[in-house]
Amino acid sequence: MIIAIKPGTAQEDIKNFTALLERRGVKVHYSAGTSQTVLGLVGDTTGISEESLQAHHLVEKVVRVQEPYKRANRAFHPLDTRIDIPVAGGQVRSIGAGSLGIMAGPCSVETREQIVGIANSVKQSGATFLRGGAFKPRSSPYSFQGLGCEGMDLLLEAKKETGLPIVTELMAIHQLELFDEVDIVQVGARNMQNFTLLKELGRCHKPILLKRGYACTITELLMAAEYIMAGGNDQIILCERGIRSFDNFTRNTLDLSAIPALKRKSHLPVIVDPSHATGLAWMVPTMAKAAIAAGADGLIIEVHNNPEEALCDGEQSITPDAFDSLMTVLRKYAALEEKII
Amino acid sequence: MIIAIKPGTAQEDIKNFTALLERRGVKVHYSAGTSQTVLGLVGDTTGISEESLQAHHLVEKVVRVQEPYKRANRAFHPLDTRIDIPVAGGQVRSIGAGSLGIMAGPCSVETREQIVGIANSVKQSGATFLRGGAFKPRSSPYSFQGLGCEGMDLLLEAKKETGLPIVTELMAIHQLELFDEVDIVQVGARNMQNFTLLKELGRCHKPILLKRGYACTITELLMAAEYIMAGGNDQIILCERGIRSFDNFTRNTLDLSAIPALKRKSHLPVIVDPSHATGLAWMVPTMAKAAIAAGADGLIIEVHNNPEEALCDGEQSITPDAFDSLMTVLRKYAALEEKII
Amino acid sequence: MIIAIKPGTAQEDIKNFTALLERRGVKVHYSAGTSQTVLGLVGDTTGISEESLQAHHLVEKVVRVQEPYKRANRAFHPLDTRIDIPVAGGQVRSIGAGSLGIMAGPCSVETREQIVGIANSVKQSGATFLRGGAFKPRSSPYSFQGLGCEGMDLLLEAKKETGLPIVTELMAIHQLELFDEVDIVQVGARNMQNFTLLKELGRCHKPILLKRGYACTITELLMAAEYIMAGGNDQIILCERGIRSFDNFTRNTLDLSAIPALKRKSHLPVIVDPSHATGLAWMVPTMAKAAIAAGADGLIIEVHNNPEEALCDGEQSITPDAFDSLMTVLRKYAALEEKII
Amino acid sequence: MIIAIKPGTAQEDIKNFTALLERRGVKVHYSAGTSQTVLGLVGDTTGISEESLQAHHLVEKVVRVQEPYKRANRAFHPLDTRIDIPVAGGQVRSIGAGSLGIMAGPCSVETREQIVGIANSVKQSGATFLRGGAFKPRSSPYSFQGLGCEGMDLLLEAKKETGLPIVTELMAIHQLELFDEVDIVQVGARNMQNFTLLKELGRCHKPILLKRGYACTITELLMAAEYIMAGGNDQIILCERGIRSFDNFTRNTLDLSAIPALKRKSHLPVIVDPSHATGLAWMVPTMAKAAIAAGADGLIIEVHNNPEEALCDGEQSITPDAFDSLMTVLRKYAALEEKII
Repeated sequence: MIIAIKPGTAQEDIKNFTALLERRGVKVHYSAGTSQTVLGLVGDTTGISEESLQAHHLVEKVVRVQEPYKRANRAFHPLDTRIDIPVAGGQVRSIGAGSLGIMAGPCSVETREQIVGIANSVKQSGATFLRGGAFKPRSSPYSFQGLGCEGMDLLLEAKKETGLPIVTELMAIHQLELFDEVDIVQVGARNMQNFTLLKELGRCHKPILLKRGYACTITELLMAAEYIMAGGNDQIILCERGIRSFDNFTRNTLDLSAIPALKRKSHLPVIVDPSHATGLAWMVPTMAKAAIAAGADGLIIEVHNNPEEALCDGEQSITPDAFDSLMTVLRKYAALEEKII
Repeated sequence: MIIAIKPGTAQEDIKNFTALLERRGVKVHYSAGTSQTVLGLVGDTTGISEESLQAHHLVEKVVRVQEPYKRANRAFHPLDTRIDIPVAGGQVRSIGAGSLGIMAGPCSVETREQIVGIANSVKQSGATFLRGGAFKPRSSPYSFQGLGCEGMDLLLEAKKETGLPIVTELMAIHQLELFDEVDIVQVGARNMQNFTLLKELGRCHKPILLKRGYACTITELLMAAEYIMAGGNDQIILCERGIRSFDNFTRNTLDLSAIPALKRKSHLPVIVDPSHATGLAWMVPTMAKAAIAAGADGLIIEVHNNPEEALCDGEQSITPDAFDSLMTVLRKYAALEEKII
Repeated sequence: MIIAIKPGTAQEDIKNFTALLERRGVKVHYSAGTSQTVLGLVGDTTGISEESLQAHHLVEKVVRVQEPYKRANRAFHPLDTRIDIPVAGGQVRSIGAGSLGIMAGPCSVETREQIVGIANSVKQSGATFLRGGAFKPRSSPYSFQGLGCEGMDLLLEAKKETGLPIVTELMAIHQLELFDEVDIVQVGARNMQNFTLLKELGRCHKPILLKRGYACTITELLMAAEYIMAGGNDQIILCERGIRSFDNFTRNTLDLSAIPALKRKSHLPVIVDPSHATGLAWMVPTMAKAAIAAGADGLIIEVHNNPEEALCDGEQSITPDAFDSLMTVLRKYAALEEKII
Repeated sequence: MIIAIKPGTAQEDIKNFTALLERRGVKVHYSAGTSQTVLGLVGDTTGISEESLQAHHLVEKVVRVQEPYKRANRAFHPLDTRIDIPVAGGQVRSIGAGSLGIMAGPCSVETREQIVGIANSVKQSGATFLRGGAFKPRSSPYSFQGLGCEGMDLLLEAKKETGLPIVTELMAIHQLELFDEVDIVQVGARNMQNFTLLKELGRCHKPILLKRGYACTITELLMAAEYIMAGGNDQIILCERGIRSFDNFTRNTLDLSAIPALKRKSHLPVIVDPSHATGLAWMVPTMAKAAIAAGADGLIIEVHNNPEEALCDGEQSITPDAFDSLMTVLRKYAALEEKII
């Protein structure tokens, strides 16, 4: 961290300020030019916020040179992290480091027939994970809120029938006891900065699919991952799912540059959700291809057998047939990227 | 809700679609022009999402005419809601319907001296509530996270000494047992769409200060209030605290037009947080004045005795002296608006 | 400007880089700590872009300490600038430094009766300038584009009849020959970064009303002013008129914090356009009050005798009666701010 | 266009309103349900703005069903438009309808050696167009503004030596006389809503590369194209070059979903500028691949022989060697998309 001191500051004041900084556990290097005095902070500055330094009356400008995250930081962990989920027969399904994870399924679990039917179908097409919501975060209290525990049971039945590992959303920590058989625990975009929840998930031993908040920066997403990792859980999959912008042609704006950005700064795998990002079923296949070309480690795609009567988010769900065609195309893009589905 | 049907749709298909809609509990009015068939949905459409209707292949366009919220809606509750908080001597401190609530205090509770000292000082200057954080949502897991229970105790001591009712943030529902003596429970911007938390707060009997998420729309804020109100808790105070935009001169962009917008659509009181919105202490007094002129029912302002050494958010805290001068000015603006502090 | 050099850079490389920088006309101060070498650039750095320095392989981070604008900068011109427009009888109408300029009138000039009628009415109510568009920037080529030269003639007639100085928009430099009798030349938000136009206006001798682009930062607005001032024209009035955000309750989001931000960084007067910012006539009076409370040096407000049949922007125009009531209120706010209308 | 009338409106008032609407040249279809009266406007509604209808006191809601653009609209021109630029030997270079246009070159023309050298090199690698700026829109008046006419001459020399057709930016209409030998005239993002300029370009007979304004919607970009097309010039190439968002990891946020969005609504070709969008040379190749996978009809990429000493935008320029490697990769993606470079 570099601090530019206001011109004309007395040496005595700088000395006192330096002492204040060193009490926070860093070493301070002083360097004075004729026009500008600059302090360099060395050591672990992750606990020091630029903004609070900025409050000091001697400070002209503060610049963070090192990122404020450590465990998520590629600088300290150069190799790509791969998340391995064990499945029947001693095999694993992997995400990251050259393996693409393809998660497909309905927004909400609705009935046994629906979820098992879709699970069989997407497995056939090549999906490696089944997605489906039992607890649904809905912006209206009057909208369908998911089947809850019953939905969870149906999801587990679909897992048993197909062998597909499952990914589903947890909305509050007390639900965790229901997640024993769940393979990947999803944290939704609206909970990305629910720091209490993140801390608790740091103590659990399951892979976490952490969705980017729709108005969160790259750094904030990595800080959210850091919250979980600081608790001891290193198995994080990051997920870009669209950000808010001024245009509403699509529901959100899919920020594919987040993929190279996150992969440069972090070793964690990054997947993309083109369904929630665009909100438009017809756009999903195109953006899925583009995500692979941009370096994504996987996709999470909504597939529904009857999108027009889906209880939730039908407008963004593709049919099993469309998913099957898409997989044929995606395999070619994966090959170009030298990745395995 | 109005649904424009795609040109050229067969009558049979429209009939089936109408039946599908009526199964969701609304009446459907059909009206055909030469060029365009339009269906009008009558009844309670709050449980029907425009987006899911948009998925249907017959639908050209969907428009919601009625707002998706009921209890928060001024249409069904024309008079302003006033929140009354009882204080010693049989008195109340009020927010809304002509009464301004002025909440002041430090971002974080740090020591007994600090919080009691600031409480005495802001009371002297005319604050009607003491604010202070015991549980702090911080974007870094390595930043100071608040004193927790100990901070809560100190806050209650300050309440006892000064008689000021207190407002403090709850980050997770299990903390609620510590909030018995708290007068107003704050839900932070990052939890505005933590729907599980909102539902639980619907069952508690305390006024809730609901901060607008930094990328949430006016409608989403009112839907978050509706989540709480649907559970039976009508005592909601809305709070504008800045939204994210492309400019970073200020930490967030204070959206003062949210005040008239919220007050037109809802009967709930609306206060403003100029400290978090701007992140700049020197800008707080100006924006506080503007908020009153824009019709705010109150303010929540960070005041710290020593902003330069504050453990959190010092750069946006004003000193007790600055707060005292500000109150003198605000009284004049309150008078113009015919409001009581 | 401060440049942090990448750790481990050879002295020889730093020396060459320093030479490269000095060839661009600045002095370079070298200061090495044990962990970080920092270069401080002294002199006129306005022609050096941070982004291009960032391209250099030795550079870790670049920070600009001084603002990139000079003539618009309050640091070099501490006193508020006041723009004086001469009117009949040796008097002036002023904007800035304690004087509020109130500009009112229709979006578009439509007929002689309309513009003269509105002019008389707003003058009666206390407006100090007449606004009205002859050349209209419309997002559709099929929308009414303004009356052009004929509109200009009608505007000048209204000026002659009422004595009100006029402000109207110039869309291209070749129109300037028609602006001889115009008192203030408006540059629209969509032309704020039309640098060719700005340069040409630097050579004209009329006050310029420079509207902030709807997605331009505070710094970019001041750089646009700097373009004009660099050509020799110092008479600039800045105008906040709403920025784009994710919410569309209002047409744009009125950023009132831009007023204290601009006034801290610059000596130029700042006015506010609540009509275009909100797009909602019922919200205009509230936001006009708030703008004065936030320190604005004036307002530009759309007033139309028959908003429902206005050829342009009727939904944001208030009636002459509403304007008259608003002026009564604004005088009280102006008095609190110790400003003269 | 559909207009929902406020409940309880008298028949007489609806009749008068209908007459008012029909005077604007459309037919009005009346349809009354028990709860809601709806008017449907038939005919050419492109000249009627929703916002101005919204001003009328009888109107509850207005919805546009048809897009406000005609000539750019795929509905009236289902086949993809292809832009053909003739080059020596009776050949053409094409953009759109299966042909990828690859434009490469420096941000600014600096010297003869530079531009001719880069031109030879990118041609060798497979670029089909040479880009380079002679007139540069810079946010600071003190930054290098381009070589102007001299730059134009150098660009034409490079064209002559290599046979590459050239694309370069026009900042004001009076420069058009210098563009005789220019193959594609670029309109920069900051001029996308310079409507006077767009109208003039409607009268010229050259292909126009129209860059999306950094805060303009998909619809606004198509309306800007419509301005040019309404004047008679149908040769428009649209260009996505990044939009403003709250995150500043990249300079802008590349909105690749704009490609399928624009191509669904319009027949015009769409290219992508990953250099300006990201502002980061290391990210350009990744986003270039993703753009092709998302369906782009071409790319415009900054290539500089010495990015570290470039007079402009060096941080986003890739070297000729990096461009050469990129082309090898892009050919594979083009093949998957069945497109010809």
